[in-house]
Amino acid sequence: MLVLSSPSGAGKTTISRRLLEIEDDLTMSVSATTRRKRPGETEGKDYYFTDNQSFGERVNRGELLEHAKVFDYYYGTPRAPVEKALSAGRDVLFDIDWQGTQQIYEQAGDDLVRVFILPPSTRALEARLRARAQDSDEVVARRMSEASSEMSHWQEYDYVIVNDDLDNSLQQVRAILAAERLKRTRQIGMGEFVKLLRSGH
Amino acid sequence: MLVLSSPSGAGKTTISRRLLEIEDDLTMSVSATTRRKRPGETEGKDYYFTDNQSFGERVNRGELLEHAKVFDYYYGTPRAPVEKALSAGRDVLFDIDWQGTQQIYEQAGDDLVRVFILPPSTRALEARLRARAQDSDEVVARRMSEASSEMSHWQEYDYVIVNDDLDNSLQQVRAILAAERLKRTRQIGMGEFVKLLRSGH
Repeated sequence: MLVLSSPSGAGKTTISRRLLEIEDDLTMSVSATTRRKRPGETEGKDYYFTDNQSFGERVNRGELLEHAKVFDYYYGTPRAPVEKALSAGRDVLFDIDWQGTQQIYEQAGDDLVRVFILPPSTRALEARLRARAQDSDEVVARRMSEASSEMSHWQEYDYVIVNDDLDNSLQQVRAILAAERLKRTRQIGMGEFVKLLRSGH
Repeated sequence: MLVLSSPSGAGKTTISRRLLEIEDDLTMSVSATTRRKRPGETEGKDYYFTDNQSFGERVNRGELLEHAKVFDYYYGTPRAPVEKALSAGRDVLFDIDWQGTQQIYEQAGDDLVRVFILPPSTRALEARLRARAQDSDEVVARRMSEASSEMSHWQEYDYVIVNDDLDNSLQQVRAILAAERLKRTRQIGMGEFVKLLRSGH
């Protein structure tokens, strides 16, 4: 189980997409959210879009591995697809924030590999956010504030990548994935949490 | 600090040599030994060849990071070249056995990354040892016994590579090196042992 976290605009989504194209044994965990679908987003690919009531019901039924409120919206990781992928012997990639990472880490421990992607600088991050035509100044300012908040948690991660070159960063994530698969503790059998999820409990 | 251990004949020496050709920031730690120089070996490149008395004096002066007796001969890691390389900000590669690895690990902890290279099978290992024309049946038998003894310690290592394809194994060691360099704990500063060695104490 590999988690990539970063402030919005640091390149995480592009890295995730390219990683999934290259790595055959990797499945993306698609989050559920109560936020509105943005232009270009696809249901079931980018997110499972849902409303507050359905989200709350899923939480109550224990169907989410983690969930958190970020500003006005809820985000969560559906448990069933993760169980299915792990049961098939696949690795799972999570694109979640520090809150979700903490919650999964509490359950999974070393079964979770945590990678934080930092932008090369705060200015570079702001430039990337501004380049998103759909966002107003107010939205950019808010995203910069969110980014600062997210970045303050980089020390809770196992690996840190400074994304100043996308190809290089992609190779670095691939190296982490390759190395983690060679860890003795993974080769002699999965940890307790993966076993639990594989068994569907 | 990266250690590669394996039974003799599992391909470790070839992997080390090629790794050093490719990785610019890596320095090989050359061991001192009391065994005889074999045909094709170079003083200061393969080993520092020495006698029992000089070896004992170096041990007494604390000039070796680790040392161990393997059958009839002593092997040890000179401390000064490791200090020099680490002070220059370089990583150091050790080609040492489980005894040396244990001794450095006791001092270095997580500053040492431990990789064990396994042959694809015991038969493959014996075939490789037999292919070394200079070794008699008796020597091959003895090396197989040494190999079993060495292999029994693979569980003391962080990573395990089964060397059934040399290029693939080389890429795996490179991935481990790349990933370990991205570890948060290494990016926020070296551990205490590396600091100690860098300061020459």
